[in-house]
Amino acid sequence: MKQIKIGIIGLGTVGDGVIKMFENIQEIVREKTGGEIVIKTLVDRVIDKERDFDLAKLGAKLSDNVDDILDDPEINIFVELIGGYEPAHSMILKALNNGKHVVTANKAVLAKYWDEFNEACVRNNVLCYFEASVGAGIPAIQGINEGLAGNRFNLICGILNGTTNFILTKMLKDNMDYDEALILAQKLGFAESDPTYDVKGIDAAHKIAILASLAYGKTFTIDDVYAEGIDEIHLDDVIFAKKELGLIIKLLAIAKKNEWGVELRVHPVFIPEEHLLAAVDSEYSAVYVDADAAGNIMFYGKGAGKMPAASGVVSDVIYIAKNIINGTAGKNQFVANYDNSKNIQVVDINEIKSKYYLRFNVLDEVGVLAEITDILAKNNVSVATCLQKDVHKENIMPLIMTTHKAQEADIKKAINAINGLKSSKESSLFMRIENEI
Amino acid sequence: MKQIKIGIIGLGTVGDGVIKMFENIQEIVREKTGGEIVIKTLVDRVIDKERDFDLAKLGAKLSDNVDDILDDPEINIFVELIGGYEPAHSMILKALNNGKHVVTANKAVLAKYWDEFNEACVRNNVLCYFEASVGAGIPAIQGINEGLAGNRFNLICGILNGTTNFILTKMLKDNMDYDEALILAQKLGFAESDPTYDVKGIDAAHKIAILASLAYGKTFTIDDVYAEGIDEIHLDDVIFAKKELGLIIKLLAIAKKNEWGVELRVHPVFIPEEHLLAAVDSEYSAVYVDADAAGNIMFYGKGAGKMPAASGVVSDVIYIAKNIINGTAGKNQFVANYDNSKNIQVVDINEIKSKYYLRFNVLDEVGVLAEITDILAKNNVSVATCLQKDVHKENIMPLIMTTHKAQEADIKKAINAINGLKSSKESSLFMRIENEI
Repeated sequence: MKQIKIGIIGLGTVGDGVIKMFENIQEIVREKTGGEIVIKTLVDRVIDKERDFDLAKLGAKLSDNVDDILDDPEINIFVELIGGYEPAHSMILKALNNGKHVVTANKAVLAKYWDEFNEACVRNNVLCYFEASVGAGIPAIQGINEGLAGNRFNLICGILNGTTNFILTKMLKDNMDYDEALILAQKLGFAESDPTYDVKGIDAAHKIAILASLAYGKTFTIDDVYAEGIDEIHLDDVIFAKKELGLIIKLLAIAKKNEWGVELRVHPVFIPEEHLLAAVDSEYSAVYVDADAAGNIMFYGKGAGKMPAASGVVSDVIYIAKNIINGTAGKNQFVANYDNSKNIQVVDINEIKSKYYLRFNVLDEVGVLAEITDILAKNNVSVATCLQKDVHKENIMPLIMTTHKAQEADIKKAINAINGLKSSKESSLFMRIENEI
Repeated sequence: MKQIKIGIIGLGTVGDGVIKMFENIQEIVREKTGGEIVIKTLVDRVIDKERDFDLAKLGAKLSDNVDDILDDPEINIFVELIGGYEPAHSMILKALNNGKHVVTANKAVLAKYWDEFNEACVRNNVLCYFEASVGAGIPAIQGINEGLAGNRFNLICGILNGTTNFILTKMLKDNMDYDEALILAQKLGFAESDPTYDVKGIDAAHKIAILASLAYGKTFTIDDVYAEGIDEIHLDDVIFAKKELGLIIKLLAIAKKNEWGVELRVHPVFIPEEHLLAAVDSEYSAVYVDADAAGNIMFYGKGAGKMPAASGVVSDVIYIAKNIINGTAGKNQFVANYDNSKNIQVVDINEIKSKYYLRFNVLDEVGVLAEITDILAKNNVSVATCLQKDVHKENIMPLIMTTHKAQEADIKKAINAINGLKSSKESSLFMRIENEI
């Protein structure tokens, strides 16, 4: 029986999960591939450390030198699980150039070096698969790239980060403020001790760059994505919007086609509580698509975690192994050879049009409302609803408005002007409302 | 540029949709396949009929003889869109034996002739793809077969029929009774004039047989699936269960692993209103999975309709075309060569264990409750909640109970005994409650 040999770098949570899965699925692998998958070499920075797996039983070599995989002609597939830009980028490139197929769960490296990897795949007739990079075990990448081939995408958006979704769910459902929810997330292992990458929307930005590149047939990198995090969200607004407006807070990553190009943005947003995405809670993730033929499609599941991420990695390894065994691996590329000169511009965040939730903190005085609505009108912002919160603090009154569609630049100009009013006592804030997804 | 030629039989709604899609996606096809897809021959029972497409512009031949496709050595892919067992079965088999790849949206023929088709694919080194057969444009088949490869499935279930989901949504949300909702569904084109196939659960039964075969690696056919329809559901129970118990009515198709084998069943069921499947409304469908590594995954979208079904068919054609162009088509089979002698039994419906909703229609008299609870206890049925509806009709009182987990055979025995009581005035009914999905 033909044996496919793999080498794995990175023995953290996901690496452990991958090893654990392969220990128990020999029969499935035989059925799906007609052969065997053998883990030949494991590489980690530190090798004399206690492990969750039995190295001797596994029969694998443990090394701290990645070249023990990359230079081993017996190894067919390089599984990269260390994350980050470097040295992952150099390793993947060397693997591809050495004729190895690559499976990676690394969104960052893909969202930066997409073209380089695809060019190396084509040149060397090898494959690079990355199902786990966006939704861990949720098979959304293959779904968008192959299952929805033939569709044009009006919208791809998603709740792509489990950490922030957990925090926002705790704020909304358990009335926790941001700091309290973050501490709980850290305690439960849903957030890192330095949560910046997640809470600032950077993780989700990498992921939407990958999805947009697949959907729109042109490379978008992390630099093309506008990102705002959740760390400045106030519990008051979250609770008020739910109760009074039926709007639910989510951190959405959005790739949206409009007449000028593609909007690529990650930021907190209010969505209607009836929308299916509003039901995606806690550490769950979802990719939501509006495609011209298929219509609205959603992929839902655990977008992070040991075994879900391992599931995505293992499915890629099985697929490539099957192709190697049947002599077809690398003859079909997974990512099409798109024309990057295609005229699809990234729309500046100030050019987008959206509905908005606005909160002004003003003195409870005669004439204030007139001043504010006058500034909004002069900046082409049309008010849809106006609500006054029954919460006063030293004569300061929170005034909530929602707007009809307005341009973001106009909203920002209006807010700046309103912040300059004598009656404005704290910075005003705005939140985008997406009710057309 | 390499041209892949296809022939389509069946020019109904989906056929029209496929033709319409291919008219507008030449660029996508070129990018994804490196070649062109040309519709060479169209076959329909009646050929002198007005069409939505321009045959001359399309440049295709229109015929009423399927052999104009099956015997044409130039045609690479046979697209079967006529549905039903015969003649679809013979045509697909002839196409495969003539070395053509097949794309079909026909759940019925797959759920009956699975083994025959797979054997013919392997023997002739050709492919049979069928993404549209279960969820139209929802890429759930590929997701389960490849994206979740390496997982063991505890459960696959789904809302797999748009007609019945539309009717149940209208009952629940608009208080329509079954007959009224059915008439509306027919008026809107969501139900056939003879709705039997949908409302009796037969359509969903075919679909779950396909999903179970992929997930459990053994062929299950339509004959293995227990099916009950929605045509005997009472509006009263639907409304009462939602209001008093927080339970939502759905027609679920279920494939569930238990210690003895696989349960394969389609029937109406109450699910908790917090469950994501409860939010899948109207003509939408969803496939929901519990996999050992990936956890809970849901695929959601329009499971029927012209363009959604066309999307599924076209994605398969593009995938096969790409493989033909690169010389790999048929070297990897899509469905693994499973061992059908595997010991996975189908569990008889009377052997399943579930929680139940029971309604008894009894005289409002002293001792009735004691009689009923006595019979339930003697049949090992333990009552969880007991509610009395405040609706009397000629001294008949509807008595609602929910049970802890019980065996279906015991429930039926108890109900028979209770129906025989002098105080029981109308047939009692039961509905399964799935609150562990």
